[in-house]
Amino acid sequence: MRCLTIIAFVYILRDGGAYGKTRRSEILEQETRLAVGGNTNLTEREDAVNNCLMQAKFRECDYGFTNPQFFNFSHHYFSYKEIIKHSKVYRMIKDIPKGAALHVHDMAMLIPDYLLNVTYMDYLYVCFEQNTVKLRFSKAAPKDTCAIKWQLMKNARKHSGDIEKFDEKLRKHFTLVCDHPDETYPTIKESWDTFLGYFGTVAPMLSYRPVWEQYFYDALKAFREDNIMYVEVRSVLPDLYELDGTTYDPVVTAKAYKKSIKRFMKDYPDFLGAKIIYAPSRLVDRQQLGVYLETARRIKKEVPEIFAGFDLVGPEDQGNPLIEFVPQLEEAGKDLNYFFHAGETDWYGTLTDDNLVDAILLGAKRLGHAYALPKHPILMEEVRKRDIGLEVNVISNAVLSLVRDVRNHPLALFLAQGLPVVLSSDDPGVWEADPLSHDFYVAFVGVASRLSDLRLLKTLALNSLKYSALDDADKINAVDKFNQRWNDFIVNFNCSKY
Amino acid sequence: MRCLTIIAFVYILRDGGAYGKTRRSEILEQETRLAVGGNTNLTEREDAVNNCLMQAKFRECDYGFTNPQFFNFSHHYFSYKEIIKHSKVYRMIKDIPKGAALHVHDMAMLIPDYLLNVTYMDYLYVCFEQNTVKLRFSKAAPKDTCAIKWQLMKNARKHSGDIEKFDEKLRKHFTLVCDHPDETYPTIKESWDTFLGYFGTVAPMLSYRPVWEQYFYDALKAFREDNIMYVEVRSVLPDLYELDGTTYDPVVTAKAYKKSIKRFMKDYPDFLGAKIIYAPSRLVDRQQLGVYLETARRIKKEVPEIFAGFDLVGPEDQGNPLIEFVPQLEEAGKDLNYFFHAGETDWYGTLTDDNLVDAILLGAKRLGHAYALPKHPILMEEVRKRDIGLEVNVISNAVLSLVRDVRNHPLALFLAQGLPVVLSSDDPGVWEADPLSHDFYVAFVGVASRLSDLRLLKTLALNSLKYSALDDADKINAVDKFNQRWNDFIVNFNCSKY
Repeated sequence: MRCLTIIAFVYILRDGGAYGKTRRSEILEQETRLAVGGNTNLTEREDAVNNCLMQAKFRECDYGFTNPQFFNFSHHYFSYKEIIKHSKVYRMIKDIPKGAALHVHDMAMLIPDYLLNVTYMDYLYVCFEQNTVKLRFSKAAPKDTCAIKWQLMKNARKHSGDIEKFDEKLRKHFTLVCDHPDETYPTIKESWDTFLGYFGTVAPMLSYRPVWEQYFYDALKAFREDNIMYVEVRSVLPDLYELDGTTYDPVVTAKAYKKSIKRFMKDYPDFLGAKIIYAPSRLVDRQQLGVYLETARRIKKEVPEIFAGFDLVGPEDQGNPLIEFVPQLEEAGKDLNYFFHAGETDWYGTLTDDNLVDAILLGAKRLGHAYALPKHPILMEEVRKRDIGLEVNVISNAVLSLVRDVRNHPLALFLAQGLPVVLSSDDPGVWEADPLSHDFYVAFVGVASRLSDLRLLKTLALNSLKYSALDDADKINAVDKFNQRWNDFIVNFNCSKY
Repeated sequence: MRCLTIIAFVYILRDGGAYGKTRRSEILEQETRLAVGGNTNLTEREDAVNNCLMQAKFRECDYGFTNPQFFNFSHHYFSYKEIIKHSKVYRMIKDIPKGAALHVHDMAMLIPDYLLNVTYMDYLYVCFEQNTVKLRFSKAAPKDTCAIKWQLMKNARKHSGDIEKFDEKLRKHFTLVCDHPDETYPTIKESWDTFLGYFGTVAPMLSYRPVWEQYFYDALKAFREDNIMYVEVRSVLPDLYELDGTTYDPVVTAKAYKKSIKRFMKDYPDFLGAKIIYAPSRLVDRQQLGVYLETARRIKKEVPEIFAGFDLVGPEDQGNPLIEFVPQLEEAGKDLNYFFHAGETDWYGTLTDDNLVDAILLGAKRLGHAYALPKHPILMEEVRKRDIGLEVNVISNAVLSLVRDVRNHPLALFLAQGLPVVLSSDDPGVWEADPLSHDFYVAFVGVASRLSDLRLLKTLALNSLKYSALDDADKINAVDKFNQRWNDFIVNFNCSKY
């Protein structure tokens, strides 16, 4: 029987007995070392940065501890997102090199104002229905059904009489943010319905080929500005189309990615690149899954340099569990790397919950969310043993109603257990969050231990490269580049700036 | 290096490799066996009961899974407590022998209607202030300060003009239940303020010696009727008083307990008894703690047969952490058994959080709440190794704002890990819950795995005896009696009755 080093900590403890100060510090020390970042040593300069950071963090935490009614993280993210910018900790985190974003959905990377701008482009048609709005670029009025009538957005806006009000109303379709989130989204039903509505609205607009290519270029720009150096994006790879109605197949969409990435890398050579994870809907039958897997293989063949692997998306509780597709996925696993969403659920002991065991046994390189993992101690050890990256998206889980007070988010346990965590942001545009800084901030101050410090942030950033789909050589290069940037950050750090 | 059997499960797993059906069922089987109740075998008759129970549980869970907006346990307890009685699962749980309640606070065991009845007793004086009400039994008007004036409750009620309205208003001081809990208790501040206000209101009324003695007798009656056979009650042991103003010291209060218990046992010889845990406020200095510990020793000497041990109570985030008192508590630990509240907090990495390590190292026999334990993997293994009972109070933690959706309650992880859990109800009277059945129901349907069944319920009931402060002989007797009652329940079970 082989015992893992991590577990071995447990047995270093002497047998039960009287209280001892040494014993106490041993235990606390063991917990510190076991936690994510616990084995990272800081240089003298890093220590100085850390002191500045922790002074600010302690101030925030301790104010909340003494005045719990004002502790932001016990409330809905929407109720405090606007004041985050006043946080000193946040402003430092913003400047910290954060490595990679490994779990983001392509059509949800940019904020509503960006999408609103897109609606100012020529040839965009709009159809206003009861509670929804349909959008599509076209030379002539689109043929898609419309309860009332298709009109050019330009005309609709002009004839609205009040452009500001018109845009304000339109913008609401591009965001989940609202004034009274607890009332607007009392349960997961309301938040997911609105969330799926968002994609229904924006997908047809963004799938217009030139918009698609520009959107991703601009998304990378926004992510780079948030001090992210590499991105892995999940995409349903929608059929792109032209103004004349020509539509393409998903391989063309993948190629459009390649083109955008290439252009971006040329303009920003310090950026390390991006890869795609083909992630179509899980709400399909086996036959359709077969089509998806075939498409994945074709994409891998056509654009191998940007293809990371395969996943299935959609509301996990409603979609098919992985077990439904095991034989097909097992077979395709010989060609494809998996990055499955798994355990994005509060439902313990259900088929959704079982996705964790199947994702792990299917050899997933990383798990999307893995929110339910702590309810599965054996699987937790499998994750550790197989070194499977856990893509944690705290704000997403809060906004999409898995948890209210983020101090109850399982990330706290993953960090405590020293599991291979990477932080990501899922769909930051939809909740008007920073590409990654808001998630780092909420995780650092709201979820992690009060005592977790710069070592945690550095380890999380490094984890995002370690658990990326970059090949070994690129990974080494990425870590090198990261270390340079990290050192620049440390050397140029000025506490009084914040 | 000695590896625990439980941990050993982890290593039974073969090394990483392709997906295998056998492997999958191995993992699921290991998780089932590791979980609380996983090693319990059911008889054929128990199996039949289990089928009936699980059919009802599946119906409830699956309805919620399909209609998450109507899943009660994602909402505040107050929003669904009235409809619990319609649940078939609940009605069965009500009838199931549940063993012991090991974590309840004496002045919060009975519902507001009981307290309202007490206000009909002679010699009760009342003082209505801004938002509070003061109550005290006395021959003449009490001398305690009163912003307006002390008057006999009888007269105040008579002169109110509308007795029903008067009582309805008065009753509000005896409960936390309200119509819009999310608005009334947006954070832990509001819920705890109201909660502490409750004790401030009722303590002076209940400390009238005859009321005190009767209250606990009636509390035991209510608990017995909820199929509980033994109780350990935490008490601040307030100074009891007589109508003429005579007051006694805490030892007399302890003796009053002995008297009530004796009387109750005579009237209900099938009941196994009750013990007290002396649990004064943690908001004190070392000198006062010294007084408390001395009192504890005196009580142990005077009424050893009902004295279980010592604890400290009050809002844990605000009170002194245990570390403040370690030398004193270490010394007193030679004479006293400890049952410390520890980790009843969402604050990770704070002094409150550290109470867990100190409670464990001080040799606590059980931990009250231990809500924060999963954030401490090394301590979690200490709990397992030292076999420390975890007193979990799900509804309390929800009402007192630690968690909203109980599916995020750490109990799920304790159950999954097979830790020594006992369920209790903390202050059921204050939230108008059953003595224990509501907590069992919420834990069983709202927190535990959908697949957890009668084996879980039976194990939880047995745990409550195993981790009680009964001595070995009494424990054997208790388990015997429990088994008889359990068998009666199984033999007489009639599925169609529910």
